[in-house]
Amino acid sequence: MGKILRVLSWRNMLVLSLAINFSLVLKILKGDRERGDSWDRTAYVSIWPVVSTTASGSSSLSSASCNYSKIEEDDDRIINLKFGDPTVYETYWQENGEVTTMVIPGWQSLSYFSDENNLCWFLEPELGKEIVRVHKVVGNAVTQDRYIVVGTGSTQLYQAALYALSPHDESGPINVVSTAPYYSSYPLITDYLKSGLYRWGGDAKTYKEDGPYIELVTSPNNPDGFLRESVVNSSKGILIHDLAYYWPQYTPITSAADHDVMLFTASKSTGHAGMRIGWALVKDRETARKMIEYIELNTIGVSKDSQLRVAKVLKVVSDSCGNETAKSFFDHSYDAMYERWKLLKQAAKDTKRFSVPDFASQRCNFFGRVFEQQPAFAWFKCGEEIVDCEKFLREEKKILTKSGKHFGDELSYVRISMLDRDTNFNIFLHRISSSSNSTL
Amino acid sequence: MGKILRVLSWRNMLVLSLAINFSLVLKILKGDRERGDSWDRTAYVSIWPVVSTTASGSSSLSSASCNYSKIEEDDDRIINLKFGDPTVYETYWQENGEVTTMVIPGWQSLSYFSDENNLCWFLEPELGKEIVRVHKVVGNAVTQDRYIVVGTGSTQLYQAALYALSPHDESGPINVVSTAPYYSSYPLITDYLKSGLYRWGGDAKTYKEDGPYIELVTSPNNPDGFLRESVVNSSKGILIHDLAYYWPQYTPITSAADHDVMLFTASKSTGHAGMRIGWALVKDRETARKMIEYIELNTIGVSKDSQLRVAKVLKVVSDSCGNETAKSFFDHSYDAMYERWKLLKQAAKDTKRFSVPDFASQRCNFFGRVFEQQPAFAWFKCGEEIVDCEKFLREEKKILTKSGKHFGDELSYVRISMLDRDTNFNIFLHRISSSSNSTL
Repeated sequence: MGKILRVLSWRNMLVLSLAINFSLVLKILKGDRERGDSWDRTAYVSIWPVVSTTASGSSSLSSASCNYSKIEEDDDRIINLKFGDPTVYETYWQENGEVTTMVIPGWQSLSYFSDENNLCWFLEPELGKEIVRVHKVVGNAVTQDRYIVVGTGSTQLYQAALYALSPHDESGPINVVSTAPYYSSYPLITDYLKSGLYRWGGDAKTYKEDGPYIELVTSPNNPDGFLRESVVNSSKGILIHDLAYYWPQYTPITSAADHDVMLFTASKSTGHAGMRIGWALVKDRETARKMIEYIELNTIGVSKDSQLRVAKVLKVVSDSCGNETAKSFFDHSYDAMYERWKLLKQAAKDTKRFSVPDFASQRCNFFGRVFEQQPAFAWFKCGEEIVDCEKFLREEKKILTKSGKHFGDELSYVRISMLDRDTNFNIFLHRISSSSNSTL
Repeated sequence: MGKILRVLSWRNMLVLSLAINFSLVLKILKGDRERGDSWDRTAYVSIWPVVSTTASGSSSLSSASCNYSKIEEDDDRIINLKFGDPTVYETYWQENGEVTTMVIPGWQSLSYFSDENNLCWFLEPELGKEIVRVHKVVGNAVTQDRYIVVGTGSTQLYQAALYALSPHDESGPINVVSTAPYYSSYPLITDYLKSGLYRWGGDAKTYKEDGPYIELVTSPNNPDGFLRESVVNSSKGILIHDLAYYWPQYTPITSAADHDVMLFTASKSTGHAGMRIGWALVKDRETARKMIEYIELNTIGVSKDSQLRVAKVLKVVSDSCGNETAKSFFDHSYDAMYERWKLLKQAAKDTKRFSVPDFASQRCNFFGRVFEQQPAFAWFKCGEEIVDCEKFLREEKKILTKSGKHFGDELSYVRISMLDRDTNFNIFLHRISSSSNSTL
């Protein structure tokens, strides 16, 4: 070493060092360029129109502390609150999303298989691990001794469960029932292929037929937010529990759900609807096997890329719950929903022109405090003078909602998404509070 | 500047330069660590056993120039060539995949919507653009005035097409037929829900019923690789063309396909089966609209993450075709398939114990030269003394294949994947060429 140092003068060593600097700078620049190329792809997210004219500054990028009631300008555009597009969560992921960034090399996702040793051979092991962890952290579902079946959203898993739980003999299609108001897609999804295995049987409250049937229990319920239990009084019922909304931003977590087939989805838990990932926790091996068979036949598995992304997002959510220096994902989303529901209830009270449901308070084991439900949808009832609430809101207020009739209920009701971006919620609140145009 | 130089001695400048070196190295290490966190996720690809004992060095990472015939060791394990898992392409993407690396930030894929102005509102615009481009570059399909419908693999699109093309009145299920040997999943996928809209009608060659029917034309065909046209002689047929294998690594591209409904998939074109992305090119607006309706009801759209990844992969494939300094994706994959087929045909000739189909040569417009088909599957026929070829290969050779009976054909045939990793193909070739254990 000493010999080398004697041979090299300070000047030689400087030249060498400068050359190393140069190559390192080149390497960094090359890396940035490669990453930049990928980031260009993300430009597509701007397709949703962003309103920047609100004087309160509540653009879609604004924080959850946005003052919804202080809108000073309303550009008169149509506000679409018909779907449950969970863009309310964008703020959190934009502010905290760096750790959730995913780098996927080009040679990934070639094989169909994720884990040949698992009954669910298309489940990414990392996703399975993070699903178990997040349920443990939140305490909303039992995962021990359960099979995890991943699906292209919980919509696919609902159909997988119908396929698995229907008799495949000649006994004809089994009836599928749910208490009204029920999720408007259930009748459509059950009947669109005119299956000989299952068919929509209507409102569970009035169901009286003999023989086996499947009852869907959505709790908290879509559209009205209430907690649900099965209602058909028969020993022949097979239950599917849709627990998409059983998360602490929407409802107090009172116990770990422990049912035969439980459906969850990333769309409503973390807000990543565009990934199309759901999961089922299934007690019985044969039921799980047949659900997996359905997904094999329907789509030969589930996107690996999105599974890996959901795994990472769930990891960040679980990590954030143990972090005492920053607001957790659930703290943040609870606060956003709390603020919206407070304002909506206040508007109902002030104007007396519409009503929203009243919920009982319960203790949440996750947050360790008592609160009321604050659902993902408002089950909104127009005043008595308005027969068709959906038509009225559309024509008089330029607000698109989903009529009660699609949920097996009356025209005086509509379902309104509480999960849209701040600006849209802001304008919605402003319009239903204002007495202009009408007497809502 | 001169003043600064006088103040700083060589020694000072060296210290400064070394400090810059140090900070640049730290920056690079930090970048690697951040990326490393994501790369750890990719460890799952090793679940498929990799044989590293072959003396020829043809591990799964070896290049396409692997000498298949020179295997010196065979560890006697089971070789599964039952599925069309396209892992043969892994080599190319590992060697050229850097430009395909995708960075996806955590706040991406929140909304369900990709493009509200498109009939197919869940199609990522970037993917639509790259689908059009790759078909133009390859010249294998007309895209002008076509609707693009994206699906969770072409399996979902096949079902979407059945839903769209079946009559929804009371005329009962429409028959779906295809010429035997047909893709073994078609009957299963058509009948698993006992749909009242459509049902499997069997071999198109012997179909004689009156009235409307749907004919599936797979060209090149799975399992036998031959080019196909519709065979039922009736004006009442509705056609679906499955063109999953109409790419220049498998068959000469003789013209741009121009049919009413054409199905393609990333699985068999670029090899990214785990992404679960397929696309349909559809002439009629109403058919496209109903296919989209099916996908809405079935899975509420298609993974955005995988759509963006396929867009990037297709871009790299198209770019590689115009690059004269390096081998294009299709050059590389053509060579791999050519090499495998050459060896398989040679083995058939040498041993005389099995046969594979003979194909006619045609001129490929894409490559500008004449060659024979070299399909993704070998339609393998055992010698006359073997009744059940699948059973024989499984029991005597430890090679798993799919029996001809699943494809509507005889037990003397099996379908063998030509798309597996080099090591597996290598061992397969070695075992069927060797006279040990049996008289294949």
